[in-house]
Amino acid sequence: MLGISDEIENEACHMWQFAFWNPSEDKDKIIERTAVVPEVLAPSRFGYEATIHQGRIERIMETDLLRYSERGVLRNTRLVDVRIDEESDPEFPVVVTMNTNGEEKVIRTKHLVGADGAHSIVRQCMGLRLDGESLDHIWGVIDLVADTDFPDIRRRCAIHSPAGSVMVIPRERISTGAYLTRLYVHVPETVVPDSDQVLDGNDDVKADDARQRRSKITQEGILQQAANAMKPYYIRPKDGVVDWWAAYQIGQRVSPQFIVNDSMSVARVFIVGDACHTHSPKAGQGMNVSMMDSYNLAWKLMYHLNGLAPEPTATGTPTPLLDSYQTERHQIAQQLIDFDRKFSTMFSGKMGATEGLTQEEFQQAFKLGNGFTSGCGVEYPESTVVLRDDLEDSTSPVKGTDYLSGILRPGRRLLDVRVLRHADGAQRHIHDDIPSTGRFRILCLASTDLLDRQSVSALALDSLDRLMAEFPASVIELIVLHPKLHRQFEWEDVSACIKQRAEMRFHDGSALDDAYAIYGVDPAGGALAVIRPDGYVGVVARLGDAARVEEYLKRCIRTVSRK
Amino acid sequence: MLGISDEIENEACHMWQFAFWNPSEDKDKIIERTAVVPEVLAPSRFGYEATIHQGRIERIMETDLLRYSERGVLRNTRLVDVRIDEESDPEFPVVVTMNTNGEEKVIRTKHLVGADGAHSIVRQCMGLRLDGESLDHIWGVIDLVADTDFPDIRRRCAIHSPAGSVMVIPRERISTGAYLTRLYVHVPETVVPDSDQVLDGNDDVKADDARQRRSKITQEGILQQAANAMKPYYIRPKDGVVDWWAAYQIGQRVSPQFIVNDSMSVARVFIVGDACHTHSPKAGQGMNVSMMDSYNLAWKLMYHLNGLAPEPTATGTPTPLLDSYQTERHQIAQQLIDFDRKFSTMFSGKMGATEGLTQEEFQQAFKLGNGFTSGCGVEYPESTVVLRDDLEDSTSPVKGTDYLSGILRPGRRLLDVRVLRHADGAQRHIHDDIPSTGRFRILCLASTDLLDRQSVSALALDSLDRLMAEFPASVIELIVLHPKLHRQFEWEDVSACIKQRAEMRFHDGSALDDAYAIYGVDPAGGALAVIRPDGYVGVVARLGDAARVEEYLKRCIRTVSRK
Repeated sequence: MLGISDEIENEACHMWQFAFWNPSEDKDKIIERTAVVPEVLAPSRFGYEATIHQGRIERIMETDLLRYSERGVLRNTRLVDVRIDEESDPEFPVVVTMNTNGEEKVIRTKHLVGADGAHSIVRQCMGLRLDGESLDHIWGVIDLVADTDFPDIRRRCAIHSPAGSVMVIPRERISTGAYLTRLYVHVPETVVPDSDQVLDGNDDVKADDARQRRSKITQEGILQQAANAMKPYYIRPKDGVVDWWAAYQIGQRVSPQFIVNDSMSVARVFIVGDACHTHSPKAGQGMNVSMMDSYNLAWKLMYHLNGLAPEPTATGTPTPLLDSYQTERHQIAQQLIDFDRKFSTMFSGKMGATEGLTQEEFQQAFKLGNGFTSGCGVEYPESTVVLRDDLEDSTSPVKGTDYLSGILRPGRRLLDVRVLRHADGAQRHIHDDIPSTGRFRILCLASTDLLDRQSVSALALDSLDRLMAEFPASVIELIVLHPKLHRQFEWEDVSACIKQRAEMRFHDGSALDDAYAIYGVDPAGGALAVIRPDGYVGVVARLGDAARVEEYLKRCIRTVSRK
Repeated sequence: MLGISDEIENEACHMWQFAFWNPSEDKDKIIERTAVVPEVLAPSRFGYEATIHQGRIERIMETDLLRYSERGVLRNTRLVDVRIDEESDPEFPVVVTMNTNGEEKVIRTKHLVGADGAHSIVRQCMGLRLDGESLDHIWGVIDLVADTDFPDIRRRCAIHSPAGSVMVIPRERISTGAYLTRLYVHVPETVVPDSDQVLDGNDDVKADDARQRRSKITQEGILQQAANAMKPYYIRPKDGVVDWWAAYQIGQRVSPQFIVNDSMSVARVFIVGDACHTHSPKAGQGMNVSMMDSYNLAWKLMYHLNGLAPEPTATGTPTPLLDSYQTERHQIAQQLIDFDRKFSTMFSGKMGATEGLTQEEFQQAFKLGNGFTSGCGVEYPESTVVLRDDLEDSTSPVKGTDYLSGILRPGRRLLDVRVLRHADGAQRHIHDDIPSTGRFRILCLASTDLLDRQSVSALALDSLDRLMAEFPASVIELIVLHPKLHRQFEWEDVSACIKQRAEMRFHDGSALDDAYAIYGVDPAGGALAVIRPDGYVGVVARLGDAARVEEYLKRCIRTVSRK
């Protein structure tokens, strides 16, 4: 949606399959492949997960940033202090002290976003806690070019052997032409859990103890443990070269509060990413969930700053659009941490006939995690920006509950479908119609009566036409799908509003994918939905119920007086 | 293959369909849509043609060039003179005089490529002719944001109306969010043909006359003519704005000679693109064919310069690898000009019941042209780098002649197929295995006996393994496909050479596309092919006939002594 995925599509390692290896009944084999499943289970646009050096992701985003900011990221700068001081300047109440190359500077700002990591100064200055614990499992992680006869070295693998656990994560090709592999290796040292401990600025003795225990882990130790767990296959670094390695303990912590308001209840300071939640790297979610925090916040902040959000009902009442950042992302952080704790514990355990954890349980957990990694499993709760579909089943325009497969659900992403554009016969992805331009989109799934004048579809489009005129120009776009119709048609056969408002966003929803079936909409009835600027469904309504769309949009966007 | 198509894939206009409009029997309708056909008929990787401002293509290539040359393109430089002087320095015999910002400089070079356009100074200095003629049709071309009720304004259209001919070429979205449209408009002024005239440096009176006639064409005249031909629909520039317009006469010229040798028969000076052939812009081939000239020449020149090409049999004999540039590209230029002349004449004519040219004839011509635009219709003749398959039908490993659909044919591009990679289950395009790195590739289509030791497939792979060792390291890569096999298998079940030489280029050729059927190869027999660095098939051989592969490769690449 940001248009910055080319390098990842072209140069990352694409993981298509996940292989499960478990102890074999045949003692000579030691381990055997018990299943290979697709890496992405949901019908997302890309059928793979991509792995690539985080430095490259950062460089991609930093380069893109230069399109909007000539200065870009200011380096060599340390945050010294943050406080809220409304008395001197209530409009710019956030006072930030920072130090660039030894020179201290104080600035005032309306809002501050603390994306400053697990040891966040913003979080500490605002007095926010991180709650959670550190579990006892110690893991080694190592990046290498592998010399091995293990047959699945280019698949993501969960290997459980009598000698321990290894996770194989294939990585991208490097400039030598060789392919990197990452191994996560469970180091089965018996250690005392330092539970409920907060690693936060003033680390205590237990943390030092944990560090000491981690410090005993060596590169050779990790490699030896991996080699043991992967027997009877051999694995060693090609030409002895290891790209990088580290040891860590799994810890899961989350801040109960992601936002600090001023005395007028205006959200002023936000924390995102590792600053508000940390977990093990094993779920592959550290960077992903953190970026989604910022992505969730960005459009809301933009609407607020540009005066596009509705005014609060009264001075001193909360700013609901901004507050929904906490509602939505805190829940996801907590869910991910719960999942991570379960998954990590599972993975650190051994599986097999004699163990309690079955292959099926592990695969089930993998499916759940897949909802996070594909993004298709995230569901935000009811809030200002999610008007949940509380209709009785009999009147709801959407049937079905298999949301992971695409059934429309407020609070979840609009999943991609392939559509055929009317204007030019182009084969498109509907996701290409919702780039990150800050716009809301009304998705009109017209019904089979589209070609009749005075039909429900035609009247719905007229209502949407009037409705869109109530809001600032170009903040809302219209996307129209039509189901399989009984005859060919031309522009003159459909509501003029379609050509005027959606000439290049009017698609046949049945020619390529069966969009109506995927979204759970009956072609005879049609439906309306609003897609938020971040691609999530905000509301679903019956085709004839443009009023519900209007109600939802007025919660998010200020109206303008009609001309 | 060059890895520079992202911007075109993301931001160009993708044309998927071609609509034909012709005079209607119903006089009130005037014109009617008689057919809509796919814009790309061959099974090429991209199902569309892309249109985008030529300036952006140039910028993309210039940016990419900076990866290889710190200086990049040297601007403000005029070529003054080129001559060959072997006496003073036979190794650097090309003497070039150029002028940068008023400062004259003389340099010597081994080779010179003249990509300096229709009025090429290189061509003139070398005394090369441009043969051909200028036809009488005058065309106006105009780029605008169209305000129109013509229903196919976003499709490529050939419109033949009683009032004239218009071609509609949808173009990309511009920064205002509007979509550009290009119109080619036939201006039906009766003019005297200035046939067989060479517009080359010393233009004569006839050329002046042609210019004068063109100069009478105005923007308003072109728009009025387009509006007349598109009736009963209206078309006008939105807000009156026209982006660009011009008038031209169709001319087709080609140089009989693309290469100038020195006295030792070494190819020293080359001309490419408009410098050696010009034609009307209507076929959409000016830039495309020109770039393919350079692409054809580049790898041959690189092999020659780096000493990778075989030595000539004797001093003073021709350099066959370089000479094949002329063999291959002159034929294509001539074919394209023949096609362009036919297509332009057709298009300038009117069609309908009373005319001689039928809709079917025009569509047939469109199909032929599609071979050029998709690149799938180009076929190079027999030469050093194309060893034609002259085998009897009974022994040829390739059956079929539908080359446009993918049947392997030396001298034609290897068409894309989707394959499933063994190592990681990735769904790939085989074209991703042949990027422009200057390498030859041996494509081994293994047969159904792959899993048997001492089978034809296994022996073929052993032969290829030995064969590849005869050539400089990493100049040749191996790609292996396998057909549907009777059982699952592991690395240990196939020739060790596959994992060693093609671990990440070993694919199931039946799981996604039926590669064997597309390429015309019987899975029971298999086949070998060599793919040239530019993606063209150089030779096809039976699976057991590695000697034929060796014979071909030795014509192109120098061998090294075995260790």
